[in-house]
Amino acid sequence: MTLAPTLAIIGGGQLARMMAQPAIALGLPLRLLAEGEGVSAAQVIPDQLVGDYRDLDTLKKVTEGCAVVTFDHEHVPTEHLHALEAAGVAVRPGPDALVHAQDKGVMRARLTELGIPCPRNAIVSSVAEVEAFGFPCVLKTTRGGYDGKGVWVVRDVVDVAEPLRVAEEAGVQVLAEELVDFRRELSAIVARSPSGQAAAYPVVHTYQENGVCKEVIAPAPDLSPELAVQGEQIALRIAGELGVVGILAVEMFETVDGRLLVNELAMRPHNTGHWTQDGAVTSQFENHLRAVMDLPLGSPAPRAKWSVMVNILGSTRENVGRLYDGYPHAMARDPHLRVHLYGKEMRPGRKVGHVNVYGDDLEECLERARHAADWFQGDLGNDSD
Amino acid sequence: MTLAPTLAIIGGGQLARMMAQPAIALGLPLRLLAEGEGVSAAQVIPDQLVGDYRDLDTLKKVTEGCAVVTFDHEHVPTEHLHALEAAGVAVRPGPDALVHAQDKGVMRARLTELGIPCPRNAIVSSVAEVEAFGFPCVLKTTRGGYDGKGVWVVRDVVDVAEPLRVAEEAGVQVLAEELVDFRRELSAIVARSPSGQAAAYPVVHTYQENGVCKEVIAPAPDLSPELAVQGEQIALRIAGELGVVGILAVEMFETVDGRLLVNELAMRPHNTGHWTQDGAVTSQFENHLRAVMDLPLGSPAPRAKWSVMVNILGSTRENVGRLYDGYPHAMARDPHLRVHLYGKEMRPGRKVGHVNVYGDDLEECLERARHAADWFQGDLGNDSD
Repeated sequence: MTLAPTLAIIGGGQLARMMAQPAIALGLPLRLLAEGEGVSAAQVIPDQLVGDYRDLDTLKKVTEGCAVVTFDHEHVPTEHLHALEAAGVAVRPGPDALVHAQDKGVMRARLTELGIPCPRNAIVSSVAEVEAFGFPCVLKTTRGGYDGKGVWVVRDVVDVAEPLRVAEEAGVQVLAEELVDFRRELSAIVARSPSGQAAAYPVVHTYQENGVCKEVIAPAPDLSPELAVQGEQIALRIAGELGVVGILAVEMFETVDGRLLVNELAMRPHNTGHWTQDGAVTSQFENHLRAVMDLPLGSPAPRAKWSVMVNILGSTRENVGRLYDGYPHAMARDPHLRVHLYGKEMRPGRKVGHVNVYGDDLEECLERARHAADWFQGDLGNDSD
Repeated sequence: MTLAPTLAIIGGGQLARMMAQPAIALGLPLRLLAEGEGVSAAQVIPDQLVGDYRDLDTLKKVTEGCAVVTFDHEHVPTEHLHALEAAGVAVRPGPDALVHAQDKGVMRARLTELGIPCPRNAIVSSVAEVEAFGFPCVLKTTRGGYDGKGVWVVRDVVDVAEPLRVAEEAGVQVLAEELVDFRRELSAIVARSPSGQAAAYPVVHTYQENGVCKEVIAPAPDLSPELAVQGEQIALRIAGELGVVGILAVEMFETVDGRLLVNELAMRPHNTGHWTQDGAVTSQFENHLRAVMDLPLGSPAPRAKWSVMVNILGSTRENVGRLYDGYPHAMARDPHLRVHLYGKEMRPGRKVGHVNVYGDDLEECLERARHAADWFQGDLGNDSD
């Protein structure tokens, strides 16, 4: 006997792992489809199946008896999502919304139709079309890219061959976008439930390193009140117009001339929202669960003046794999540090965890969070061991 | 391959369940010995064994390959704990400390020896000895009692027979204690690591109903600074003298004449510390894990002026078992409410969850938390369904 409806999660990465924490508190039973034995979320969710999310039978099996299915990633084929809906499982976010996070071409077309500010863009299929679009520009595969993969900055005709080849091999299109002269990158996260209730977290500043999110500051420092409101409104409008259920993350550029342009969409808890675990009344993970289960949303209000998140990335150094060694120093140095690890082995550049720090002094928060992340990464202090 | 040493937990109740949340964040692998299939913690810890904690072979099996073993309850026999230590597992808290939470006679003798203020007390074995101790008084079985069970207030000779009979049948002793004229009950919670580091949470006010904790206010309102410090010092001293590792909860009476007397000890996360999940920088559950793994402790500092915890107890009403029905109203009414449910079916008087509320206005926090708990219990509003 279960006391509450069961939620299926497709994908066993750290996002599913971090959904498990509020699911414990809310008394929500989870069932996991994991890519492999012992992956990040499979370590912490007992009711699990190991299998391939591209296989419809596997998806049907894992969602059997579940009221709702949600996702750790955007890679489940659209036709399978429709099949699950037909089988009576509530798919949240639904396939018609999710396609905008799966396909950048569809996303750009829809946002343009809605009048949401985006970088100038066009689908291109030849060197000549890219040349006509104009250099420099950014080429992206419409599907399958993440964390900087599937994205190229091209400045000349010779740069274009590889993106076209990769796209052709993958059977996807190429989207050309203007290279935006941005002041910085921002992210606006909202939660939206099927009944239409929505909650907006404050717009944050995100700092990327080699295409991977490295630091987040909440709220974005020195953001004009107009842009702060505009950022939240853009995210709320997209969530409503696209019928998103769950968390929607809208990555944006703040241009040097003070405009916001939408860069990417994600329809799941997002790296730029990890600060909410310790810095907001209700974390993005809890609000994702509440939204997909159609429970009232929790307050997205910040609990501190400043929150800082710094990712722990696998180091390229000798001490790779010795993550646990970093605990004593980082924790002893900073008893207020909040540590979040994913149960993943260190590999160069891999996201293996993050730290959150909150407080009244932004510079101090940044110093503390960066030091702790560096230490966990093995970039400090372990030479003499 | 595990990235960190594995921690075994004996007992699958809600305390083990709530340890699972910070274990996810800390990347600590857990292995659970559960009393039965699907009990509270077994719903959320994949690596588990179902078996009897009174059986040494079962204990050896579940702790095999684990660096440390800790507990959801105090009921594991002392001789088994010594056997596990001999087998090379770090038992935390250790048997020599834990006996003071298992046996109230041993606890009283030791605290008296240390000069820690306690109610006047004596081991009694006959009606005549209770009469000599004096009426009214409290009789307690030295072992096996909890949540008001194994405790009797006796006012006359005729009341004494039952406690003596229960104790004899259980093969335990009876402790007589003066009936303390108390203003209120308080609780002091500290965490202590094997290396001796300790952290004290602020002393809280606890309100019991029928021997069961119902409400906690942190910090205790109108507590004199002297008693607040004294309460923390008593708990720190006991933890140090007894060599406690992990969380120690010291339940105390504040007498009408302004003294603190120690009532009970618990060496595990405690109901009177649940407010720390949302009201402190580091929860008691996380600090219990850090302590038993000998990691540096996190800050026990409060994050709000006031935190209130109210237990959700199984109702005696018709709607028992419909806990999930309470979610929408309680969450919609109060987006700042923090809900913690244990995955337990409603039974009259059973602890099935709690709510935490924090804020600047104590009366408002109490009203919000009580309303939410009443609603979850089905004591409000569901009649018209």
